[in-house]
Amino acid sequence: MKQISMLIAASVFAVQANAMQWQALPGTAPAPADNPTTEAKVELGKMLFMDPRFSSTGTVSCNSCHNVMEGGDDSRSVSMGVHGKTGGRNAPTVWNSAFHSAQFWDGRAALLEDQAKGPVANPVEMGMEDVETAMDRVRKIPGYKAYFDRAFGENSMTVENAAKAVAAFERTLITPNSPYDRYVKGDKQAMTEQQVRGMNKFASSGCTSCHSGAAFNGPQQKLGEGFFTKFPTFADSDYVAKYTLADDKGRQEVTGNSADANLFRTPTLRNITDTAPYFHNGSVNDLAEAVRVMAKTQLNKELPDGDVADIVAFLTALTGEYPEISMPRLPATAGASIIAD
Amino acid sequence: MKQISMLIAASVFAVQANAMQWQALPGTAPAPADNPTTEAKVELGKMLFMDPRFSSTGTVSCNSCHNVMEGGDDSRSVSMGVHGKTGGRNAPTVWNSAFHSAQFWDGRAALLEDQAKGPVANPVEMGMEDVETAMDRVRKIPGYKAYFDRAFGENSMTVENAAKAVAAFERTLITPNSPYDRYVKGDKQAMTEQQVRGMNKFASSGCTSCHSGAAFNGPQQKLGEGFFTKFPTFADSDYVAKYTLADDKGRQEVTGNSADANLFRTPTLRNITDTAPYFHNGSVNDLAEAVRVMAKTQLNKELPDGDVADIVAFLTALTGEYPEISMPRLPATAGASIIAD
Repeated sequence: MKQISMLIAASVFAVQANAMQWQALPGTAPAPADNPTTEAKVELGKMLFMDPRFSSTGTVSCNSCHNVMEGGDDSRSVSMGVHGKTGGRNAPTVWNSAFHSAQFWDGRAALLEDQAKGPVANPVEMGMEDVETAMDRVRKIPGYKAYFDRAFGENSMTVENAAKAVAAFERTLITPNSPYDRYVKGDKQAMTEQQVRGMNKFASSGCTSCHSGAAFNGPQQKLGEGFFTKFPTFADSDYVAKYTLADDKGRQEVTGNSADANLFRTPTLRNITDTAPYFHNGSVNDLAEAVRVMAKTQLNKELPDGDVADIVAFLTALTGEYPEISMPRLPATAGASIIAD
Repeated sequence: MKQISMLIAASVFAVQANAMQWQALPGTAPAPADNPTTEAKVELGKMLFMDPRFSSTGTVSCNSCHNVMEGGDDSRSVSMGVHGKTGGRNAPTVWNSAFHSAQFWDGRAALLEDQAKGPVANPVEMGMEDVETAMDRVRKIPGYKAYFDRAFGENSMTVENAAKAVAAFERTLITPNSPYDRYVKGDKQAMTEQQVRGMNKFASSGCTSCHSGAAFNGPQQKLGEGFFTKFPTFADSDYVAKYTLADDKGRQEVTGNSADANLFRTPTLRNITDTAPYFHNGSVNDLAEAVRVMAKTQLNKELPDGDVADIVAFLTALTGEYPEISMPRLPATAGASIIAD
């Protein structure tokens, strides 16, 4: 409760401090002291991220819902896991997730290392009994050992190291050089006039009170400390019922504290054109409508159509360059599948 | 009926002619005259192959069941499509599928171009209403147009061209330079003694009566003409009941002709260590057991354990080099998802 109040205070402060502090996206992401990013970890992590064999049905990998060939999500309102089961929340993009100081919509994981373990044993995601059972499958694939050895040393095939490798890979998923980034670095031709107008309206309307910082996901926190916002803040808007925005209690489900009701981690706006549908429940499938809903429910403003169009134009300028990724070759089992249907 | 008899006759002939004609895998695959393989088609085809947005749920791409990061299949006995639905057959590997003269276990598609359209509208695979509806989704993604233009010219966003592109990509999925290939090209150190012993037993036991040719999928046919084998041939084996081998009527389901009962296209043995579980119904999850079952049901032989081990050793020598594939960047929709759950 105390932490949340402090965060809300920090948010208000951020409006003033950051409104004009436009920041480009860093080229590298911070990593926790006990998991410095190395090439060997990234290579292993990419393999684990892409490998569907650690889901109960053998059909769902991290990449199924966080598809790095697309916007790092799955184009669905809520994700679909094993046996066609669905959860209640929209898959957040994995691109630039390294710049979140807490993971999941409700911030229940401090670091990417913690987040990586969550979906594995979630019955509507990868559906394994527990992460150790999933890790047993990894251990049954002979080819993985050499990659763990290289990344972490001998006898290192543990859940903790698997999660560290996945997190290390995810920290490389950064999309720099958007028109916005080039603009703030001094290339005044990088954005159109409308985009610049939208940028100013984005700030003057108050969007930057939450969507500040290089990733537009709030002021920088210490790793593990989330930046949460109440959504909807103005709960009497018609949009709240229309898009069932208040049904999910958000962070309250983690803390059990009613003061945390409807608090959500502020999502990044990077590459937002590529991550429809929008919001924690994926209920809005149109970026302009998402802007209108945000303005009304968070700032109690009804934006003129021109302002909405300008802000959408600005948001398109946040789509960066996706780095090329080579497909990993997933180590084979030798003459027997590890999937028991 | 007549065609089948001719094929069976061809098969018997093949035993004699090909037993000693060990062939290395060609580096390129034949393509039909109306779809020569080009770089632009391969690039587009790779994108379409990887894109899950043309399945009803947005979760199933070609690659879901024919994973090129693995053995070109899905490690499952039978595949799992949209909403967790399952079909009755094991996903054949897409690697070296260009060397099949007919597609699907029952040969119901002549060419890869025809095959590519099948799973899209199959209710237990990609689950779209029909291929045109799937193609409408492709057309709704603005970025695809430029790739179709480059591959096929202006106004070319058709189902036929999409299928041609996917087929062109699949024709690049070739795994050369297996130990076996290097051995038959003259490197006598490329296979172990046991593998060479297994190779000879593979031929002398009669396996090559069906598994002949460079891809070990039967003698070369004209594109569109399948090489079918009755499986099980010796239906009184205990294995038939144990693994329910006779339940699927195979090609009879396509032709309606009882003479085609239990006829299946002879599958390739290339990379077979990477494609467990085995057979049209994926009922056997162990390569040694698959060899025993084959010997008994197809050749009426009970192989000594040593022979089984030697033949398995030989089969491991058929695993080739998988080419590196870069991940395609799938064109984004702009601020709206095309998936309607």
